[in-house]
Amino acid sequence: MLAANVEGRAIARTQRATPRPGFVHLVGAGPGDPELLTLKAARVLSQADVVVHDHLVGPGVMDLVPRTALLVYAGKERSNHALPQDRINELLVRLARRGGRVVRLKGGDPFVFGRGGEEAAALAAAGIPFEVVPGVTAACGVAAAARIPLTHRGHAHAVTFVAGHRCDGNADLDWPSLARAQQTVVVYMGLAGLPELCRQLVAHGRAPSTSAAVVQHGTLPTQRIVRGTLETLPRLVASAELKPPTLVIVGEVVAVSEALVAMPELATLAAD
Amino acid sequence: MLAANVEGRAIARTQRATPRPGFVHLVGAGPGDPELLTLKAARVLSQADVVVHDHLVGPGVMDLVPRTALLVYAGKERSNHALPQDRINELLVRLARRGGRVVRLKGGDPFVFGRGGEEAAALAAAGIPFEVVPGVTAACGVAAAARIPLTHRGHAHAVTFVAGHRCDGNADLDWPSLARAQQTVVVYMGLAGLPELCRQLVAHGRAPSTSAAVVQHGTLPTQRIVRGTLETLPRLVASAELKPPTLVIVGEVVAVSEALVAMPELATLAAD
Repeated sequence: MLAANVEGRAIARTQRATPRPGFVHLVGAGPGDPELLTLKAARVLSQADVVVHDHLVGPGVMDLVPRTALLVYAGKERSNHALPQDRINELLVRLARRGGRVVRLKGGDPFVFGRGGEEAAALAAAGIPFEVVPGVTAACGVAAAARIPLTHRGHAHAVTFVAGHRCDGNADLDWPSLARAQQTVVVYMGLAGLPELCRQLVAHGRAPSTSAAVVQHGTLPTQRIVRGTLETLPRLVASAELKPPTLVIVGEVVAVSEALVAMPELATLAAD
Repeated sequence: MLAANVEGRAIARTQRATPRPGFVHLVGAGPGDPELLTLKAARVLSQADVVVHDHLVGPGVMDLVPRTALLVYAGKERSNHALPQDRINELLVRLARRGGRVVRLKGGDPFVFGRGGEEAAALAAAGIPFEVVPGVTAACGVAAAARIPLTHRGHAHAVTFVAGHRCDGNADLDWPSLARAQQTVVVYMGLAGLPELCRQLVAHGRAPSTSAAVVQHGTLPTQRIVRGTLETLPRLVASAELKPPTLVIVGEVVAVSEALVAMPELATLAAD
């Protein structure tokens, strides 16, 4: 066993020395619109030997991957994980040890509900060199597209991001903090838990009349926005039949945004 | 007075009709590294007739502006506003009415402590068409560069962004919420208020041993990171003589990140 370990280490050392071990780029693909990729993400992607991607990365972004690159689909949709997270971590280590440039491409930003920290930890533990390329996180992309300022003087002096799957059945969200006024709350993947989210925020003291919106497919041509209040939103969203991925934004800033989308000619002018 | 107003409106109407009124792009320039600009921001910038920029936008980004474009510096550094916000709003409206493509270029993301909401409101009120181009907000850029996952299973199920100038003398931050464990707090422009921030978080119940870091010039070659705890950080930062702009990150994820930066060979490998 000891001998095998020593031999294993010797092989690992040889592989590291020549050819050099692979390098992993944990890359944020941004909120959806391929033009919202960073220059760096586009460059890294164009040089990739292997791309491990998930369902949040759209076709426009994948067009930037060279035809020669190996594509690996790692999932994951709600309740339908193509690969569990520890298998993705192992896969990245294994691919990197073959050498070359491995890109782990994730929707949004790798360190905001992207589980990039776990992948980074696995790579560091395995001695694989890596870098993190940040992306426009969904909250910022959607806010820009829906014209909802996440912070706004007099209306929100803080913004908090939480993950929606915690709303649904789990009691570990800090509801008293989230229910405070004068802050914006953004819920990632919040569609399924929306009724519970609205109920809990009101139960913990946020006004039922607080503005809130759900944005489907933010920044993409299929973007749809449903606006309401904590009281009305679950019903409005159910009848609009929105589909994931969505983002929920709660706060007085959603009301502010109504003045910013009031001009009918904007859509036309912005298009050219 | 009435006559002048009517005449003014008539002129404005003529200018709007032909040539078409200008279009304002509120553009996030990202956290500093010019490669972290989005593809869209780079395109819009390369087509600009006028660029209104501030001190958070670095030289590498400004290199993308065409030489023919008019540059307007709008400030602002702490306690040294080149132009107050309402003057910037008026300026954007005035420039847009002359026609052409006006870019308002802001560090980070326009809707995260960028006062983009106020500019958008002024433009909407004046009938000027505009769009918001999101950027990589400083928190995401710095987190990637410093390898600090903002959310991380078992350590942070939420992340909150606040502005640091509120720590300093102002009592309107929601300290009890910010002091809760299991979340990451990111303070924009937090250097001056750092001692008060750490003191208040501990006073409201966050453990003095909670990890925290200050990152100067995140994503730029001049980046420096000072790590410590809520107890030790103010002293460490003072002796390191960090300079703004900085970002403060508080939470257990800062301790997680130490395992991700432990590999000495990374810096060399990442560079080529």
